[in-house]
Amino acid sequence: MNKEQLILALEKVRAQNPLVHNITNVVVTNFTANGLLAIGASPVMAYAKEEVADMAKISGALVLNIGTLSPEVIEAMIIAGKSANEHGVPVILDPVGAGATPYRTEAVREILKEVRISVIRGNAPEIANVIGEKLAMKGVDAADSAADPVSLAKKAAEELNTVAVITGKEDVATDGKTTYLIQNGHQILTKVTGTGCLLTSIIGAFSAVEKDFLAASVASLVTYGVAAEIAFDLTEEKGPGSFQIELLNQLAKVTGDELLKKGSFIKK
Amino acid sequence: MNKEQLILALEKVRAQNPLVHNITNVVVTNFTANGLLAIGASPVMAYAKEEVADMAKISGALVLNIGTLSPEVIEAMIIAGKSANEHGVPVILDPVGAGATPYRTEAVREILKEVRISVIRGNAPEIANVIGEKLAMKGVDAADSAADPVSLAKKAAEELNTVAVITGKEDVATDGKTTYLIQNGHQILTKVTGTGCLLTSIIGAFSAVEKDFLAASVASLVTYGVAAEIAFDLTEEKGPGSFQIELLNQLAKVTGDELLKKGSFIKK
Amino acid sequence: MNKEQLILALEKVRAQNPLVHNITNVVVTNFTANGLLAIGASPVMAYAKEEVADMAKISGALVLNIGTLSPEVIEAMIIAGKSANEHGVPVILDPVGAGATPYRTEAVREILKEVRISVIRGNAPEIANVIGEKLAMKGVDAADSAADPVSLAKKAAEELNTVAVITGKEDVATDGKTTYLIQNGHQILTKVTGTGCLLTSIIGAFSAVEKDFLAASVASLVTYGVAAEIAFDLTEEKGPGSFQIELLNQLAKVTGDELLKKGSFIKK
Repeated sequence: MNKEQLILALEKVRAQNPLVHNITNVVVTNFTANGLLAIGASPVMAYAKEEVADMAKISGALVLNIGTLSPEVIEAMIIAGKSANEHGVPVILDPVGAGATPYRTEAVREILKEVRISVIRGNAPEIANVIGEKLAMKGVDAADSAADPVSLAKKAAEELNTVAVITGKEDVATDGKTTYLIQNGHQILTKVTGTGCLLTSIIGAFSAVEKDFLAASVASLVTYGVAAEIAFDLTEEKGPGSFQIELLNQLAKVTGDELLKKGSFIKK
Repeated sequence: MNKEQLILALEKVRAQNPLVHNITNVVVTNFTANGLLAIGASPVMAYAKEEVADMAKISGALVLNIGTLSPEVIEAMIIAGKSANEHGVPVILDPVGAGATPYRTEAVREILKEVRISVIRGNAPEIANVIGEKLAMKGVDAADSAADPVSLAKKAAEELNTVAVITGKEDVATDGKTTYLIQNGHQILTKVTGTGCLLTSIIGAFSAVEKDFLAASVASLVTYGVAAEIAFDLTEEKGPGSFQIELLNQLAKVTGDELLKKGSFIKK
Repeated sequence: MNKEQLILALEKVRAQNPLVHNITNVVVTNFTANGLLAIGASPVMAYAKEEVADMAKISGALVLNIGTLSPEVIEAMIIAGKSANEHGVPVILDPVGAGATPYRTEAVREILKEVRISVIRGNAPEIANVIGEKLAMKGVDAADSAADPVSLAKKAAEELNTVAVITGKEDVATDGKTTYLIQNGHQILTKVTGTGCLLTSIIGAFSAVEKDFLAASVASLVTYGVAAEIAFDLTEEKGPGSFQIELLNQLAKVTGDELLKKGSFIKK
């Protein structure tokens, strides 16, 4: 993975407009759809168990986000996930708030038992919970943690046989063997709801066009992080409302040259 | 229909603040409610089968949008639609993604069997699917199509005995006998989620105050299109996030003079 | 309650970042979460009856908003409410559209029979409906009303044994014995969907850190109203889309000095 490949991946998203099927939480649907449109993808949300298999199989990627669960949604996720698996469609999992309640912990395990995933993306306590380790949570957000995200991500990647992405002050992406650290992004992302969820869906968009899912994840993290940095620079004095809107603008506008200049990641 | 009538219709929306009951998808609820408030209407969202009949009958229009279906939502739509029919409340249907999955195709047919509608609004493949013709879809969005939207709209209007509105590069509105082509609007609308859904709800607002539903549809299309053009002019260099916000601003601000100057439609 | 206490309450919200569990309507989830983040709280939305008791008990406050009800949501609200009651977590109720349909009227009564609430916040017709009085509604919004909100609020506070907040041209907050009138806020708030719902959730955030719930309510009303006034001043010529974004900015930025200068409330 180098910056030229990363730029190429973004160009492919914009040229191919991949269809990304999201089964996501009710808080972030609009922001996720607009973020996917901005980056160049075609979002679709569909939840009914009667149609999710049909929708997943024609999609370039399926994104499962457990932010606001119900038994019906879990059932739909499993049906959609199996259909995606059968048809070679990558599945991206966002275990929002895993560990916050026993129900969420259980739900993620149930999904993982039935569906093979290509990428999992969460904060450190969420990923820890998914593989049975314990880190502090505050509702659905991570509390401060002393855990080493690199070894945690590697362990998750190995145990779940997937690419694992842990976001935080520094982001980690690994397939268990090769590991990248990504320094882009900005603290203000934590002041806008759904920025993590949107990132997961954008990993879906990149995974639809770049079958090396680790490369797709790194490309997503760098693109998203650079767009966030530019958006913050442009709205610093205004506040989180303006930042949210400018982030959508920058996802649509961020150029290869900006990724070259500002993108910051290393192979560890 | 001339521009003076069109301006009068907008003035009536703003003076009467009609209540518009929406049963719509989870992606666009907030944007739809804010867009309806901006144009001067009073939005209400209510979904429970226990209350939709009561809500529909006190409303000026009922908007049914199948973007994120479930069996419960279909049931509620039919109950609400029948109540609207009984009480003379116009029903506007947006068959989002009809044809994308068999479930959606079936759902629309079921609704149309039970509920009389006053206006249907969709893109060409959606409308084609509703009347049993085939056009290419990509998820819930239209793929490029060579079909002639005018003859498609006329056919839909006749078969469904309704006003049919097909939006695309050029918009068509017809009752089967009289047909209008509307040239307003802007390509960037396709980069913001829910702009089609909001347009359908705005047709609801106009239909609540203008009982000639073809005139109400043309007035909606021109008002919405002109607001979008002004919003694009003001945000062209910024991007789709800023456009979305400015569209809400312009729906609230667009004047009769601007409609006179920029409105562009012909009777075919 | 004086301005120094009010500023202290805001500082506590920003320092403690209380977790606020919302069971709210599908229209306002995103705006509510972003508004809570902006003011300094940690929002969580969770709806499944399988997890709401677990989530409510670890929260600083529970907010129940009946804007888009279903039988499942009512059941979850009661389970969450009982858990909050058991664990000393304040419950804030927003009876959106109570009286608009019999179903909503019933739902509120059912919730109040099972759950003790600390604060109720609504417009005059909603609060009237909850205590069995009649005022005109338009969908889920208040129609103009000649009723005296002060005596209505006092009556509600006494009958429900709670703090009652009625918002309108002037806001009232009372525990039945002590009553405050708050003059902050702006008319444009009625042109953005969910501004009342967000206010209710912000009362939740303040109630999590300030156990005098009347003081928490007054602090919320003044903070929110002043933020809205500043937001309007900055976006007056633009429109409701820009106002909505600037309101989020100002919730994050509003200072103690601004509250001192612009805050306007009296003990009646």
